[in-house]
Amino acid sequence: MAGPFTLGQIISRLGGRVAGDPDTLIRQVGSLEHAGAGQITFFNSSKLQPKLGETRAAAVILAAENEKLTRLPRIVCDNPYAYFARVSQLFNPSTVQAAGVHPSAVVSPTAKLGKGVSVGAGCVIGDEVVIGDDSCLYPRVVIYPKCSLGKRVVVHAGVVIGADGFGIAREEDRGEGRGEGRWVKIPQIGGVRIGDDVEIGANTTIDRGALDDTVIEEGVKLDNQVQVGHNVRIGAHSAVAGCVGIAGSADIGRHCTLGGAAMIHGHIRIVDHVHVSAGTLISRSLLKAGTYTGIYPFEEHAAWKRSAASLRRLSKAKSKGKKDG
Amino acid sequence: MAGPFTLGQIISRLGGRVAGDPDTLIRQVGSLEHAGAGQITFFNSSKLQPKLGETRAAAVILAAENEKLTRLPRIVCDNPYAYFARVSQLFNPSTVQAAGVHPSAVVSPTAKLGKGVSVGAGCVIGDEVVIGDDSCLYPRVVIYPKCSLGKRVVVHAGVVIGADGFGIAREEDRGEGRGEGRWVKIPQIGGVRIGDDVEIGANTTIDRGALDDTVIEEGVKLDNQVQVGHNVRIGAHSAVAGCVGIAGSADIGRHCTLGGAAMIHGHIRIVDHVHVSAGTLISRSLLKAGTYTGIYPFEEHAAWKRSAASLRRLSKAKSKGKKDG
Amino acid sequence: MAGPFTLGQIISRLGGRVAGDPDTLIRQVGSLEHAGAGQITFFNSSKLQPKLGETRAAAVILAAENEKLTRLPRIVCDNPYAYFARVSQLFNPSTVQAAGVHPSAVVSPTAKLGKGVSVGAGCVIGDEVVIGDDSCLYPRVVIYPKCSLGKRVVVHAGVVIGADGFGIAREEDRGEGRGEGRWVKIPQIGGVRIGDDVEIGANTTIDRGALDDTVIEEGVKLDNQVQVGHNVRIGAHSAVAGCVGIAGSADIGRHCTLGGAAMIHGHIRIVDHVHVSAGTLISRSLLKAGTYTGIYPFEEHAAWKRSAASLRRLSKAKSKGKKDG
Repeated sequence: MAGPFTLGQIISRLGGRVAGDPDTLIRQVGSLEHAGAGQITFFNSSKLQPKLGETRAAAVILAAENEKLTRLPRIVCDNPYAYFARVSQLFNPSTVQAAGVHPSAVVSPTAKLGKGVSVGAGCVIGDEVVIGDDSCLYPRVVIYPKCSLGKRVVVHAGVVIGADGFGIAREEDRGEGRGEGRWVKIPQIGGVRIGDDVEIGANTTIDRGALDDTVIEEGVKLDNQVQVGHNVRIGAHSAVAGCVGIAGSADIGRHCTLGGAAMIHGHIRIVDHVHVSAGTLISRSLLKAGTYTGIYPFEEHAAWKRSAASLRRLSKAKSKGKKDG
Repeated sequence: MAGPFTLGQIISRLGGRVAGDPDTLIRQVGSLEHAGAGQITFFNSSKLQPKLGETRAAAVILAAENEKLTRLPRIVCDNPYAYFARVSQLFNPSTVQAAGVHPSAVVSPTAKLGKGVSVGAGCVIGDEVVIGDDSCLYPRVVIYPKCSLGKRVVVHAGVVIGADGFGIAREEDRGEGRGEGRWVKIPQIGGVRIGDDVEIGANTTIDRGALDDTVIEEGVKLDNQVQVGHNVRIGAHSAVAGCVGIAGSADIGRHCTLGGAAMIHGHIRIVDHVHVSAGTLISRSLLKAGTYTGIYPFEEHAAWKRSAASLRRLSKAKSKGKKDG
Repeated sequence: MAGPFTLGQIISRLGGRVAGDPDTLIRQVGSLEHAGAGQITFFNSSKLQPKLGETRAAAVILAAENEKLTRLPRIVCDNPYAYFARVSQLFNPSTVQAAGVHPSAVVSPTAKLGKGVSVGAGCVIGDEVVIGDDSCLYPRVVIYPKCSLGKRVVVHAGVVIGADGFGIAREEDRGEGRGEGRWVKIPQIGGVRIGDDVEIGANTTIDRGALDDTVIEEGVKLDNQVQVGHNVRIGAHSAVAGCVGIAGSADIGRHCTLGGAAMIHGHIRIVDHVHVSAGTLISRSLLKAGTYTGIYPFEEHAAWKRSAASLRRLSKAKSKGKKDG
């Protein structure tokens, strides 16, 4: 922890302006509900106005249009949530593991680690891996051989980078000819390239490419338990929420967001600035920016049974009337 | 393994009554299908009546209304499945790792471990972590700093507790003004608090809070590969099946059940005694106890194509008739 | 890497025939897009015909019906993708970790490892585990006690085999009688048996059986982050894509495929040669071979809102007309 800072000191570093006493002393950030003496919070949703009225925070970060909603000392700025993030970084500068390689980590002598890299307990770093300056691997990260990470990459515990992609071909058994084939493995000889300032959540997996590389561009943020198939590309500054699966060779643009548990088919292309809602399966290319959704609306169980039955009936009615592909 | 015990000895410890020979000697539990000599099984579903007729088990646990369905020695009780669980615990008292810290585990000197705690091979326990008496961490569990676990908590292999939540704010790039912003990280300064008697399945992840704590109350059971976002609360004695994702700040009540791969949006509230069906996405608060479902009913592929087309047609018909939000 | 080989040498080992110069020398495989001098690629989709025209590969593997589409030296064969897999194995024979037990692995003295087994850094192998010849465990795999793996099994990093299944019974609290019961654990005393030639993707979890064993038959391929519940059986040569969840006691046939993020309910049976589409939830037994799908078709968000509203209206209309189960 760093600080304390007055509101005046904060705006001199981060911009914005103070309304109320600029000498209000702040020691830490807090939530609207639980912030107390010496803590600054933020307000950016009219739904939370009742909580703003009740907050015991020492100061609030908000937008100009909400300036009159409270008499507390406040910082007025364009983007309260991002401003709050910056303020929190000011008070909490070191949430990342200290630099250095933990003695229990297993690092190949042919791996190249940049300056200030932190490798946590139990990590395993394969041959010819390259890790850029100031990157941080939390405990128990595995990086298979020949993968590269940029600078300031943060990788949370349990992540696996560079395991084999799911590349198998069915070999027909001509003797039987009944689809009784076995699977033949396609050696996965590509790598994984991860750009600067990427963050990867706990237990996420990113497969190495089959032939070419899997690529995560700079500034991408992946949440926990995301699965990235071989030869996927995720464009710069896109964000992927938890439990998302991205199948092989999907090409995702820049500044996209994928909601939790969204599923992206393989070999499709998604252009820049596409937003996929949580729980939505994308089965073909999206060539126009926008928001896409496909979720069965939940209901009380009995009502759902009725609507599901109606849906099936539609398919039968259609089927009687005429043929359909 | 413990035992053997006669049926009479079993009911003297666990209640219920014996029908048939109370001196029948039992050495182990088994399934209706595969139990053999010396094994006791249970029956609680009329669908399985044919299997009850064929079982070679030495004895059966069942409810009074099913007492006449077999002539085998039996224990009659109110809740055969829970009774069977207790009987199995009697014969299999030690399915949990022995107490003590494995020499390959990395435990911070500032962590506090209660009496009888077991820490498996390759675990990593961060600074100021607190673990209650008789808790068991299987191999390769990572607990980030400042998280706390109650008593008798069981954590399976590969679990990550206390990694950073997915807290990022988009910072607009004013120069371009086309949504080309980068993501700014919000330091995750809350912790994780886990109550007594919680069990956590393999490779599950529970993020630390952004500002306040993430809370898992006593008696909660989480299956494998569950993702719990920052600042979630899961109420006491709720059960969460595999592959479920719970987004940040969701507040889930007591005695709830979430079916496999259910997905819970962030910042919503679910009251006590709510049951969410497998595969269902809950996108708004549920303020009434009950069962909620939202699953697209599967069909043979050709039939599905027809019903999916009908569904899209409905949206177009509606769109022509009048405007809709 | 092995080689180089001429096209003539390749067909003398793997069959097929050469069109063009059989002395064309090949050093490696490559993708249609990025292969260059000395590299062989494959073509098996008419969609990619433009790329075939532009490829700078030295040779192409393709089917007889496509033989005329290029003038490059080529190998003509029945199944170009499987042939390509075999060719890649020829040039890349050793993508698997070297045999031997890494010094940081923790292997129980009662475990039995076959000849040529490779155990990566940080693996944990429990008591009485059996691993067949030439199997390879990448770093940080955990195998709980009493599980067995066949020959030539490949297990990627972070996999957990044999953790407890999610076996809990609700014990009613008679004092309150309001469903306020606690969960009683059912000891999981079965094991996991994995057949020959199985491959298991990163961070996948396979639970031990409750009473009998969980069984993965020979030749099964599991992708990353798959969850296999207790007492599941997966028949030989089936393939399961990433993020799939299979609930307890599901019985899946041989030569099945489950698309990414498909979800299989517990206690159901799926016969041989069933294909489940990505994102589909299977809630009852499938007793007929074929392809099954159940995905809400995604749309632009506003269109989705209309079709979702229509769907709910259907359920209400039906409800007014007459009662429904």
